[in-house]
Amino acid sequence: MMLRNSVKSSLNLRNCHTLLKKRTFKEITNNDISNFRKIIGDNYVKENNIDSYNEDWMKWYKGKSKCVLLPKCMEEISEIVKYCYKENIAIVPQSGNTGLVGGSIPMFDETILSLKRLRNNFTFDQTSGIVECDAGYILEEINDKLKEHGYMMPIDLGAKGSCFIGGNVATCAGGIRLIKFGNIHANILGLDAVIGDKNGSILRMGSSLRKDNTDLHLTHLFVGSEGQLGIIGNVKILAVPYPNGISTSLLSVNTFDECKKVLQIAKSQLGENLTSFEFLDSDTLQCVNEFSKVPIPFNKIPRFALVIECTSSEEDISSKKMENFLSICYDKNLVDDGIMTNGFNEGRGIWNIRESAPLSVTKEGYVYKYDMSLPIDYFYELNNTMKKYLNDDKEELGILRICSYGHLGDGNVHFNIISKHSTYDIYNRVHPYIYKWIVDHKGSISAEHGIGQLKQKYMSIGKDSTQMSISRSIKNLFDPKGIFNPYKFIN
Amino acid sequence: MMLRNSVKSSLNLRNCHTLLKKRTFKEITNNDISNFRKIIGDNYVKENNIDSYNEDWMKWYKGKSKCVLLPKCMEEISEIVKYCYKENIAIVPQSGNTGLVGGSIPMFDETILSLKRLRNNFTFDQTSGIVECDAGYILEEINDKLKEHGYMMPIDLGAKGSCFIGGNVATCAGGIRLIKFGNIHANILGLDAVIGDKNGSILRMGSSLRKDNTDLHLTHLFVGSEGQLGIIGNVKILAVPYPNGISTSLLSVNTFDECKKVLQIAKSQLGENLTSFEFLDSDTLQCVNEFSKVPIPFNKIPRFALVIECTSSEEDISSKKMENFLSICYDKNLVDDGIMTNGFNEGRGIWNIRESAPLSVTKEGYVYKYDMSLPIDYFYELNNTMKKYLNDDKEELGILRICSYGHLGDGNVHFNIISKHSTYDIYNRVHPYIYKWIVDHKGSISAEHGIGQLKQKYMSIGKDSTQMSISRSIKNLFDPKGIFNPYKFIN
Repeated sequence: MMLRNSVKSSLNLRNCHTLLKKRTFKEITNNDISNFRKIIGDNYVKENNIDSYNEDWMKWYKGKSKCVLLPKCMEEISEIVKYCYKENIAIVPQSGNTGLVGGSIPMFDETILSLKRLRNNFTFDQTSGIVECDAGYILEEINDKLKEHGYMMPIDLGAKGSCFIGGNVATCAGGIRLIKFGNIHANILGLDAVIGDKNGSILRMGSSLRKDNTDLHLTHLFVGSEGQLGIIGNVKILAVPYPNGISTSLLSVNTFDECKKVLQIAKSQLGENLTSFEFLDSDTLQCVNEFSKVPIPFNKIPRFALVIECTSSEEDISSKKMENFLSICYDKNLVDDGIMTNGFNEGRGIWNIRESAPLSVTKEGYVYKYDMSLPIDYFYELNNTMKKYLNDDKEELGILRICSYGHLGDGNVHFNIISKHSTYDIYNRVHPYIYKWIVDHKGSISAEHGIGQLKQKYMSIGKDSTQMSISRSIKNLFDPKGIFNPYKFIN
Repeated sequence: MMLRNSVKSSLNLRNCHTLLKKRTFKEITNNDISNFRKIIGDNYVKENNIDSYNEDWMKWYKGKSKCVLLPKCMEEISEIVKYCYKENIAIVPQSGNTGLVGGSIPMFDETILSLKRLRNNFTFDQTSGIVECDAGYILEEINDKLKEHGYMMPIDLGAKGSCFIGGNVATCAGGIRLIKFGNIHANILGLDAVIGDKNGSILRMGSSLRKDNTDLHLTHLFVGSEGQLGIIGNVKILAVPYPNGISTSLLSVNTFDECKKVLQIAKSQLGENLTSFEFLDSDTLQCVNEFSKVPIPFNKIPRFALVIECTSSEEDISSKKMENFLSICYDKNLVDDGIMTNGFNEGRGIWNIRESAPLSVTKEGYVYKYDMSLPIDYFYELNNTMKKYLNDDKEELGILRICSYGHLGDGNVHFNIISKHSTYDIYNRVHPYIYKWIVDHKGSISAEHGIGQLKQKYMSIGKDSTQMSISRSIKNLFDPKGIFNPYKFIN
C-alpha cells in the first residue's frame, strides 16, 4: 500500500502551502499607516490585538498582517484601494471570517480590510420583496429584519449568526435551502464593488429590478469571486416569503440506495415545497451523539439519517404533504424509523442534529474536511472507497474515523477524515487521490466552500485550460496589479 | 407642444440606425465561400434564398449578408471562427430569429452563422433534473422531451415553438414563469461557447452540478450577452418538475391600484405556487378582441384584466389555493368579475387572450414596442403620462392607440404606441423622452428583449460609465477583433 511507509511528523496546515512564493508587494510602513488613518480615522486602523482577524475561526490558517482597516463606506474603501494601488499594497477583504478554506486570511502580511463597519444602508421593498443592503450585515440580522414583513433570505447556513451577506455573495454560499430557492445567482439582482484600478472605482452593477437586460450581467461575475475581482460593498437580493407552514422529519434508513429512492419520492411528492434534504451517515451521527451530546431519537444510531423539510405558504399544506410523503416511504419499506414535527420550534430538535455535525466531527481529533459535489450515484461511494483504500494504513496515519454528511438534495457531500493529528501524508498523498477521484467521477472539488488557500493547488485538476486563462485575464481587468486577495484561487 | 410641428415623412425602422459607421471588416469573397465550404460542406454554405435569415420575423430589420453558414457541431464553429478571425470577417450568430430588437440580424453585410443544425446532443438526468443539450434545440421540443419524465423547462414564452435554447440563454429570455422559477441565471449550470480568439477556442464553463465553486462563474457572463462574447453551443440547465395541478384565472379589475392589491394578496396567498401574474389593459384587450378575434369572456371589455396561474405538485392544491385567493379578492371588492379554470387544457382559453396580445397590437397599425422594467408603483404610470403627453399631437403623429400589457408579477411592462405609419418623430423625439422617464423612475429600458439594434443608442442612459467601460474590456477579452455581432449592445 502506497501510504504504508510514508507517515511523517505532525504539522499544522499553514505549513503545507509554503511552496507559494511571496510576491513583491510593499510592506506596510508608518507612513502608510498614517495615510490610512487620514482616510478612515485613527480608531479604525488597528495594529494591535488583531489575532482574531489574522486567524480563521477553526484556527487552521494564520496570517501575518500588521494592519487591519475598518472603513465605514464605499467611498472610504475606494480611497483605500486607490492608495494601495499606487503603493502596491496587497489587501485581503474579510467579511464574517466564517470560511473553511482560508479565503479571508492573509497568506503572508497582506493588509486586512474588514467589512464589519460597512452597515449603513438597509432598505426593503415589500411589494417586490427586494432587499438592498450594505455588505457588512449579518445574515441572521437581515432575516430578523425581514421576518417583520413576512419575508426571509433565500439562503440559510450554519454560520448565519456570524457570516456577512457580502461574504455570502463573494463565496456563492450554498446551505440548506438551496434545493428550494436556488443559489445566490437565482436571487441576486445587483451589487456595488470597488475594483482595483488606479481610481479605486466604484462599479455599480445590475439594479433593484427582477429583469434588466441593458448590459453584460457583471453582477454574476462577482458571485463566487472570493474577493479577487473587487470588494463587494452593497448587494440587491430578492427575499422569499416566510413560510406559514413548516414540517420537518428525521428518517432512519438502512442503505444508501434507499436514501436515493427517498430523495426521488421527496422530489416528486413534495415538489415546490421541498426545502431541505440533508444526509448524515452513522459515523457522523456517532460524533454528534458522543461529542456534542445532541440526542439521536432512535433506539440505536441508524446507518443513515435524512433530515427533510417541507415549507409552504399555507400552514396545513406542508404537514399534509409531509404525511403523504412519509406514508409512501413506509409503504415501500424504505424507512426504518422516523419522526415528524410541525412548526419552527418543534423542528429545532431535528435541525440540532444536522447543525451539530460540522463541529462534532472536529471534537474527536484533527479533521480533514472535503466539500464536494458529486452525481447522486457516487455521493456515498467515495466514503466506501476511501475506507477500503486507507484501511491498512489506518493506525499509522492515526485515522480515527471517516464520515460523511451534507446536502443530498443538491449533490453536495461534506466528507471528513478524522485523525489523531495533522500529517503531511494526508495533505500530500490522500488529497490528490481524492481530488482526482472526484474529477474522474464528474464531480466538483469545491461545492460551496470555495477554493481559498486550501484548494489553490488543486483547482486546475480536470479544468478547462481556456477557462483558467480567461479567468486570469478577467482578474487582471478588474485588478491589474493583483492586489486583491493574492495567492488564492486565481493566482 | 414640442412635437406639434415636427411630423416628418414615413420611413422604415432600418433607416433610423444609419448613423452607425460601417467598420472595415472584410467583404466575403469567392475564396472565403470556398473555404467555408471546405469546413462545413457545400450544402451548408448558403448564398441564395437567404432573405428569411437577413430579416427578422416582424420584418422590422433587414441585413445585407451575402452568406449564411450552417455548422453542425462546435468543432465546425471553432474552425469558422478561427478563419473569420484571421480574415477579419464579421459574424452574426442567429438562433430561432424570434427577437424583437434586431439582435440576430446583420446591420450591414456581416456573415450569418445559424445554429439551426446544432442539435446533436441531448441528455437528461432524471435524478438531478439536469438537461444538457446543444444550442439549436427548440424550447418547445425540449419541453416535449422532458414531459415524458415529468419535467419541464423553467422558462416559457410566446416564441417557444420557434426560439432555440441557445438564444434564450444569450438573451436571458424572461417570459411568463419567471415569477416562480427565476430567470436563466437561476437555472443555468454550465455552457460551452466558441470565443473569438485566434484559435476559435471552445470555452467550457460550469458543469452539470448544482454547486460548483472551483473557478469564476463565467457561465453567467454569457447569459444576456447577445452573441457578443462568443457563440453558445451547448447548455446545462436545471429542469423543473411538471406540475400535476394547474389553476388559471382571468380577473376583471377596475383600477390599477386594485391590480397592485391583487398582486400582494396573490404573493402572500399563493406563495411558492404562484407561477404567472400577467396584466392587460383595456386598449390591449380591445385589440385582442378586434384583430385576433379571441373572445373576452366578460359582458364588456374590462379596464384591466389579470391572468393568474397557480401550479402545484399535487392536483388539488392549486385549485384550493386559487379558490381561497379569489374569495379574498372578492371579499375585498378588488375584483369586478372573474373566471377560474383547472387543468392545462381548460386554461388555454385564458392564455389565448394573453398570448394574442403581442400580435394583436401589430394588426391595427405600425407598432412601437417598448419593453421595460419599472417599480410596481410606476408600472402603469408611463401609459397615463404618455397619453397626456401625446394627446395634442395624436392626429399629426397618426397615433391610433397606446396600450400596455406584460408581466406585472415581475415588474416588466410591454408598452406599445400604435400609429398609422412609422415616423422619425417617434424614434427621434418620443423614444428619448420615454427612455429618460424610465430611468428617472428607476426602471430598466430593456427588461427581457435586450438591446440589439433597437436600443443601442439608448443603452448608456443613466448607466454607470465604469460598468460600460468594463463591459467593453470584457468584450475585447473574448472577441479581440470585435467580429461577433458588431454594432449592437457593446459597440
